[in-house]
Amino acid sequence: MLSIEKYQTAFINYLNDFATPKAPNSLYEPIEYILGLGGKRLRPVLTLLTTEIFDNSFENSLDAALAVEVFHNFSLIHDDIMDDAPLRRGEQTVHEKWDLNTGILSGDAMLILAYQLFENYEGETFKALAKLFSKTAIEVCEGQQYDIDFETRNDVTILEYLKMIEYKTAVLVGAAMKMGAIVANASNEDQNSIYEFGKNLGIAFQLQDDYLDAFGNPETFGKQVGGDILENKKTYLFLKALELLDAQKKTELLQFYNDSSLKNDDKVSKVKQVFDESGASIETKNAIESYTQKAFDVLESISISSDKKELLKQFGTALMNRNV
Amino acid sequence: MLSIEKYQTAFINYLNDFATPKAPNSLYEPIEYILGLGGKRLRPVLTLLTTEIFDNSFENSLDAALAVEVFHNFSLIHDDIMDDAPLRRGEQTVHEKWDLNTGILSGDAMLILAYQLFENYEGETFKALAKLFSKTAIEVCEGQQYDIDFETRNDVTILEYLKMIEYKTAVLVGAAMKMGAIVANASNEDQNSIYEFGKNLGIAFQLQDDYLDAFGNPETFGKQVGGDILENKKTYLFLKALELLDAQKKTELLQFYNDSSLKNDDKVSKVKQVFDESGASIETKNAIESYTQKAFDVLESISISSDKKELLKQFGTALMNRNV
Repeated sequence: MLSIEKYQTAFINYLNDFATPKAPNSLYEPIEYILGLGGKRLRPVLTLLTTEIFDNSFENSLDAALAVEVFHNFSLIHDDIMDDAPLRRGEQTVHEKWDLNTGILSGDAMLILAYQLFENYEGETFKALAKLFSKTAIEVCEGQQYDIDFETRNDVTILEYLKMIEYKTAVLVGAAMKMGAIVANASNEDQNSIYEFGKNLGIAFQLQDDYLDAFGNPETFGKQVGGDILENKKTYLFLKALELLDAQKKTELLQFYNDSSLKNDDKVSKVKQVFDESGASIETKNAIESYTQKAFDVLESISISSDKKELLKQFGTALMNRNV
Repeated sequence: MLSIEKYQTAFINYLNDFATPKAPNSLYEPIEYILGLGGKRLRPVLTLLTTEIFDNSFENSLDAALAVEVFHNFSLIHDDIMDDAPLRRGEQTVHEKWDLNTGILSGDAMLILAYQLFENYEGETFKALAKLFSKTAIEVCEGQQYDIDFETRNDVTILEYLKMIEYKTAVLVGAAMKMGAIVANASNEDQNSIYEFGKNLGIAFQLQDDYLDAFGNPETFGKQVGGDILENKKTYLFLKALELLDAQKKTELLQFYNDSSLKNDDKVSKVKQVFDESGASIETKNAIESYTQKAFDVLESISISSDKKELLKQFGTALMNRNV
């Protein structure tokens, strides 16, 4: 009944029908391009699914779902500029395919287009959606800023890191689901609970990302395994290892994390060994488990059938058992 | 009664009390910086003034006025990146003082903060303001894109140029006034009329800018007179001259517009002479007059006292007779 494929198909059809204005072409072509690059469309699917969880037709939340996806892609364009990334989903990033100015301006236009999609909702629903959207969008900007700040800091705490991924990644998952609940006129309590469900699942998802980046199966992972290690990223694994290691081992880790003379393979395997030996790997798995459980616990209080709760749990479990 | 200074003072006080979030400081400090750089605060003053024109207290439109100013400064940060501008109001631009990423991300946050300022209005007023704001913001992006596109085009028409300045500059003036009318609960007809008044005044204002850039008094103008000419900008003066000149004179103008061997002073005085001789100077003055008159004509149908109409006209006339 609550089939993910159904929502994916419906969303992609809706996205394909979404017509940006025609002119100026130089502004709107990059928008069509990035929206057409694909991806799992996880966030908009969650919006549609949540609307049906709360006994309303998913068709009613297509515009909200599209706003979430347009916003997500706005953030990808601007983040790719900031990260100087040449590729996105295996294709050229917008600022590479066009130029910096196009990336900035097309991104700006997408942020505004996202707001416009809420205009199809009535006064109070419109306000609730736009308000949640603004709060979330500003948090995503703050998360991105923390991520940038952390690159040049050596005293990032686990708590700060968790706040960063919560803002940069998880709140949008929570908001995507809450928007589905708002459209379905769910109670405020249920709206907040489904937000917490999505947010905690989002944190677990990002921690899983950190874990898979180091320990994923190279044949199914899709990206280069060990990419974060090679970029000296301060991931949960790394920060946890620093926390758990004694002073000497900590110095050793910091040494070869920043040792550019090491061969890539050697560096990755050495660091992974430390992640394992320090207990950081286990602790990261525990944290993923714990945030997933936190998400599941929130479900208990929501006034939906236990069948639906079971489905949401299955969805969460599938996400956490993914290997891509 | 309708004193501009009163609104300026009230607005600046309100702006000074406007507290952006504290953290991350690296995101919010640049926002405080650009908002503190000053300027005439023309747009927000027009919002406040319009609210009183429609018999409501200007205090009620302070948040809408602030949204307009925050948006305007967002567009300045991103435009300065695109134009590679080192200075804004005589001070370093944000991307110069900090860096590119800071400019992009702080700008993004400002666009969202502007939307959040509307949240202090009730459901339907909120929606009307946010909707007008989105429409205007997307037009400003389109105007900026046209401006960029025109740099590399040699067949820009006067009509296209007028559309560009309408979008890039004038619609925000119209929207600033319409927001004041929305807050005051003016009739839809009056809302639209005051928008047209502001928009036409905005076009006249930008044409006046073009004119003063070439023919302003160097002692009072503030910027380098002839700056547009030295940057080979396709202004109204230039496009009009091309339209009016015969084939041979047209070729001559194009030649020394692009002649980098000419001394600055020689180039400016030569081009200004052509602007005069071709009739482009007079035509530009006529166009300024005509858009100002268009703005005044729209006032006739608005249901406000003739005293107030007179005041708006005085304000418009003062703007058009400025020499800075």
